[in-house]
Amino acid sequence: MNPYTIFSDIIAGRAPASKVYEDEDVVAFMDIRPVTPGHVLVVPRVPARSLAELDPALGGKLFQVGQRLAAALRTSEIGADGVNFFLADGVTAGQEVFHVHLHVVPRKPGDGFGLRARPTMPPRADLDYLASSIRGALEV
Amino acid sequence: MNPYTIFSDIIAGRAPASKVYEDEDVVAFMDIRPVTPGHVLVVPRVPARSLAELDPALGGKLFQVGQRLAAALRTSEIGADGVNFFLADGVTAGQEVFHVHLHVVPRKPGDGFGLRARPTMPPRADLDYLASSIRGALEV
Repeated sequence: MNPYTIFSDIIAGRAPASKVYEDEDVVAFMDIRPVTPGHVLVVPRVPARSLAELDPALGGKLFQVGQRLAAALRTSEIGADGVNFFLADGVTAGQEVFHVHLHVVPRKPGDGFGLRARPTMPPRADLDYLASSIRGALEV
Repeated sequence: MNPYTIFSDIIAGRAPASKVYEDEDVVAFMDIRPVTPGHVLVVPRVPARSLAELDPALGGKLFQVGQRLAAALRTSEIGADGVNFFLADGVTAGQEVFHVHLHVVPRKPGDGFGLRARPTMPPRADLDYLASSIRGALEV
């Protein structure tokens, strides 16, 4: 599978982008289809397709740059009142570009963005069972 | 403001939780109101209320533990086909517990979870203008 996406072109400067931040590891730029004004994407320079392919050091860096952007979105003219981080890993999770990207979404009251979710309240025994299965998978 | 929430009680072992992972910095446990079966929260042990209060080293660690959990959710009995990360910073962003927490949500086709969003396609000049404002705020 071709590891190069439009993000590789943006990182290399071959495709236009409204960049907000870059360093030796990551680049951040405006999403061209923002869910709210000021929606930013943070990506590693290396073309990791998934969380599984992403060096954890770079994963940590994505979050840290996200933290800095969250602060800037509040103090900039965007004047965010809150911020969401969102990341989709895999087609089923809604991933569309196969280069890991952290969405940093500035929020204001009534902006219409949010989750479509119907939380349940399972019995503790069910949660314990699932936790045990996850712990087992972590240990492998 | 009281920096202690139910998560402090969980971390200290004073409140019940179905834990999946813990180390010296972070704890991960099943969300008691899962949006899909296997929904996990990753929290720092220290009671940081917001991304602004969170030591970036711990922020990076949350993401890295999220990466490990994403892999485990795929290989465990939960059999996730994809994974979403979600984080809400501030009331306007949907934050309900004021102790930073990263949601790690396993996904399967047709599970009903997703974003409520209406992306727009602003002209490049608008994106450039917002990017410039964010860059300015980052430099302060």
